[in-house]
This record gives sequence, structure tokens and C-alpha cells, in this order.
Amino acid sequence: MVMVSDNPALPTHVKIVEMGPRDGLQNEKQPVSTEVKLELIRRLIDAGEKHIEATAFVSPKWVPQMADHHEIMAALKSFPEAQDGSVWFPVLTPNLKGFEGALAGGAKEVAVFAAASESFSQKNINCSIAESIERFKPVIEAAKAQGVKVRGYVSCVLGCPFEGNIAPEKVAEVAKALYDLGCYEVSLGDTIGVGTPNKARAMIAAVAEYVPTSKLACHFHDTYGQALANIYACLELGVATIDSSVAGLGGCPYAPGATGNVATEDVVYMLNGLGIETGIDLTKLVDAGAYISEQLGRRPVSRAANALLAKK
Amino acid sequence: MVMVSDNPALPTHVKIVEMGPRDGLQNEKQPVSTEVKLELIRRLIDAGEKHIEATAFVSPKWVPQMADHHEIMAALKSFPEAQDGSVWFPVLTPNLKGFEGALAGGAKEVAVFAAASESFSQKNINCSIAESIERFKPVIEAAKAQGVKVRGYVSCVLGCPFEGNIAPEKVAEVAKALYDLGCYEVSLGDTIGVGTPNKARAMIAAVAEYVPTSKLACHFHDTYGQALANIYACLELGVATIDSSVAGLGGCPYAPGATGNVATEDVVYMLNGLGIETGIDLTKLVDAGAYISEQLGRRPVSRAANALLAKK
Repeated sequence: MVMVSDNPALPTHVKIVEMGPRDGLQNEKQPVSTEVKLELIRRLIDAGEKHIEATAFVSPKWVPQMADHHEIMAALKSFPEAQDGSVWFPVLTPNLKGFEGALAGGAKEVAVFAAASESFSQKNINCSIAESIERFKPVIEAAKAQGVKVRGYVSCVLGCPFEGNIAPEKVAEVAKALYDLGCYEVSLGDTIGVGTPNKARAMIAAVAEYVPTSKLACHFHDTYGQALANIYACLELGVATIDSSVAGLGGCPYAPGATGNVATEDVVYMLNGLGIETGIDLTKLVDAGAYISEQLGRRPVSRAANALLAKK
Repeated sequence: MVMVSDNPALPTHVKIVEMGPRDGLQNEKQPVSTEVKLELIRRLIDAGEKHIEATAFVSPKWVPQMADHHEIMAALKSFPEAQDGSVWFPVLTPNLKGFEGALAGGAKEVAVFAAASESFSQKNINCSIAESIERFKPVIEAAKAQGVKVRGYVSCVLGCPFEGNIAPEKVAEVAKALYDLGCYEVSLGDTIGVGTPNKARAMIAAVAEYVPTSKLACHFHDTYGQALANIYACLELGVATIDSSVAGLGGCPYAPGATGNVATEDVVYMLNGLGIETGIDLTKLVDAGAYISEQLGRRPVSRAANALLAKK
């Protein structure tokens, strides 16, 4: 069976949303200084990243690593890329109090998150999915009133550590709710990294019944090594926004020692090979990943990064 | 853009050819005892593997790790799975002398290898591609006369450490030569792991002009983390034989410290998720990988294996 070698379904350009400074670092046990976080962000900007999740306005009691959100926001204000709007720095804001803090800090984009699994929602944020969506309504309303963009995350889209399988229709229902409320983009997260390509396809296809594919992002964890294959399958369905984390920052709290977010370096290596533009310089990106990994006292959790660093 | 979620092009069953005991271990610097190799092979059989490359009849001067090929063959003779033919143990035989050794040891399947890159052929086996193919002719003739199956490998199919890009047409030419000489299967190896999915598609499509897809195997190294995405792309083109190495055994001599062969555990995890049968028990496979990794004093180089082991 011979088929055409090129794959016309693939997008020509992909938007990378960098998770490193927030989703990546928040699970790190050792404290990372504000100055190191800002230096990482500067290096990611220098590598060409245009969407960098910068911090979270959550309680330091729950996420001590994000306790410096005020300092991060204050520093970002002086970045020329923040002033001229050439780089976006979304901020995670789980509730109205968090949103008000982010807004006071100058946030132009925020993010809210819901789970596709009832059990995960209860254990992670202590309320039902429906209640969590009710909680976002005032955040999204306030953001709209202030001209702030809102990104929506859905977690556990391909499996839940408590429930196992999650029906694609459930993911679609939650994604639709976030989109209908006004999220400009919905990021679909395989939080525990258990998905495989056809399950990813089925999930994307179910969501795309209600939310245009152009408004969807895929967010894969590489816990079982499946992230790039899943991303390739999503690209084939037309998804053109990918969440990833430099140096694979971010472990998996449900499988200690296992890999977390897919590494931005691995994603960009694949997209370069596919001829898909990202605007990102892989060499500078690898250097940014090497910088933060050195600060954390380990090698990057990225195969492409380690191969490129080994050749130096 | 909504598309069907299932992917009818995918095969329903995949043949895994296990590289661990040969391609995997041959690059290991520390000696591995014959007993450990045999115990690994026993565990791989117990996990359901049916095609296990067992050893190589090459000079111990070049590949000291394979110096015990006579002992391995002698021991395999007593395996019931070798006697009843339920498991195949191909043996790498680069020349007629090697073939005669393997035949004397009872080999029922051997393998020969050529490169798709002239520079690599010269540096790796000290002759041109055409000369290497001439060298295989008597091996393949002798094998045919003895009823021994011959597998052909083509290396550097998506890139060469010396030449860079390799034209798909060059790969097709070498694969065709091996197939026309009588190789029952041709394994296409991304020796340095630089390929990405569309390049893999283009290469497979070029080869499939001359060799039926059902006679092709894909052999990816995970050096840049691309192996599973490439395998998924090859499955979409109908390739149904995959070479892989338990625990990701086998480094990359061209990028020290980088990842080598794609891990069988990661491949089987993906195939299980895709509903593609392999006959392999993932839990037992992970245990086999943990066994050999422990012998080598490290963790498996498999994300799926480490995630599953972390959950224990």
C-alpha cells in the first residue's frame, strides 16, 4: 500500500504555549528564586516563544512555588515584550480573588481550569465539575469587562488517576461549557499521560463537534512516552496549538519519578522536521532548558535536548 | 475540521522484532554474562515475544559483547521454543564466515545489513554499499540452500552522521537490492534517530514502490524522542513489523549519553492503546526490562516502563 508521503492535513504554523515557568515549576519540590524564573522567561522570549504561562494566582499554602506571583507580574511589566504586546504571559487564576490579583498585576490573559473527571475535580479542587464552572463564570465575566483574554484548561481528557477511562463526550461537554462562557481557546490536557493516538483522535473529534478545531490546544504529558505520537495525531486533525514545557519541566504527582509535560524541545524538533513553523529557535530553546535544568541540578527531561547537548 | 476518530489504515496486528539481546547489548561497555543474556531471552519469551535477535557472528575484536555467540546458540538449542519453532531467534551474520558459524550453531534465521549512506558504509564496514551487497550474496545463497530465512537491514534511512540527509530513493535502491536477493523482510533503520514523521512517510513510500509494505519493518532510535511518532506514521502507511529494544537497550555511539533503540515497552504501550495485537504481555515485558536494567545498574530507558514501575 503506497500512499502520498506528505500529509496535507497538517497545519503550516503551530502556536506553542510554554508551560515551563508555571505548570512546569509548580510541581518542583525545591524552591526556585524569582530571579531564576525571570531569567528563564527572558531566555524563552529570546528563543522566540510568544506565549509563556508566567505564574499562578493560587494560595501559597497549596502551591508554594507560585508564592512570588506579585513579584513576577511586577517584573514582567518592565519587559518590552509585555509592553508592546509581542509576547503573551497568561496567568492561572482559579477564582475571582486570583483574577483580581492578576489584573492588579497587569495580566492581559488569564487561564481557568476544569476537569473532565468528577473524581479528579473533587480531589483536586474540592468541588464538582459543574460547581467549578460556576466558579469561573464571574472570572470570565470580569475578564471580558476588562478586555482580558481567558484560556480554558480541561484536565484528565484521556484518563483519570481515580476513574480510569473518561468518555470523549464528557470532555466535549466541559470544553463546550468553557468555550460558551467565553474562553477564546480550550486546552485539552492528558494530565496523567496515559493516552495513545487513536484515543486522542476520538477525543479531539468529539470536542470539535462543539468547539472549532482552531480554538483547541492539545496539552500532553509524556509519562508513558506517548506525547509526540499523540501530538502528531492531533496535528493530522488540524489542531494547531500545542502546550509544552521547556526541558520537560513538571513531574507527574500521580507517578513519582515519571516524566511530566512533553518537552518543548522535543515538540519543536518534530515540528521543524515536519516543516511546520513555530518561530522558535531550537538551539536557543535547548540552551534555555539547559539553564533551568542546571538550576534544578539535573539534565533536561527532553531527548532532543540531551542529544543536541551531547553533540556540543 | 472533524474527522473520523478511528484510523482504518492501521494494521490490526503487529510483529515486534526484539533487538535487546543483540543490537541493544552490543553497544554496552560493561560485559554482560551469557547467563544474564539467556535469562533476559527467557523472560522476553515468557512475556510473549516471538522474534528475538539473539546474537551476532561478528569478530569479538570489533564487538566484544557478542563474543559468546557460540555459547548463546548452544543454549538456545535446548529452549523448547527454539525446538518447536514457536519463537524465532535471528542472528546477525555480516559475511559467509559468520553465516557458517550461525548455521553450525543451529540458526534458522540470519540477518545481514547494508547502509543507505556511502560514507556510513565506508566508516562502519569499510566498503561501499555495492561491495557490501556483493558480500551478502553468498550469505543469502547459502542461507537459501539451507532453508534459513534472511532478514535485511538498511541503516541511516533518515539521515547519516557523516552525510546528513539521505534521499528516500537511495534507501529504496538498497532495500530493493536486499529484497531482490532474497531477504524475506527488510528493516529500515533510522540509526541516529534524527527522523520525523513526514520524512518517515516519504521514505516508506519510496521503498514501497519496490518492496511490498508487508515485507517492511521499521527500526527507529529514540535519540531525539521522535520514535513513537515516526512509528505511528509508519503504521498509517500499513507497516506492520516494528523493531524495538526492551528497556531501550542500546545507546547511540554518535551522540554519547543519548537514547538508542526505541523501547519495546513504549511501543507495546502505544499498540495496546491503539487496539493493535502483539501477543506481548506488557507487565511481564516491563519486568524483563527491569531485570536487565538492574543487571546494568540503571533504570530502564523507557518512559512507559518507568511510569508503570513507579506505580508498583
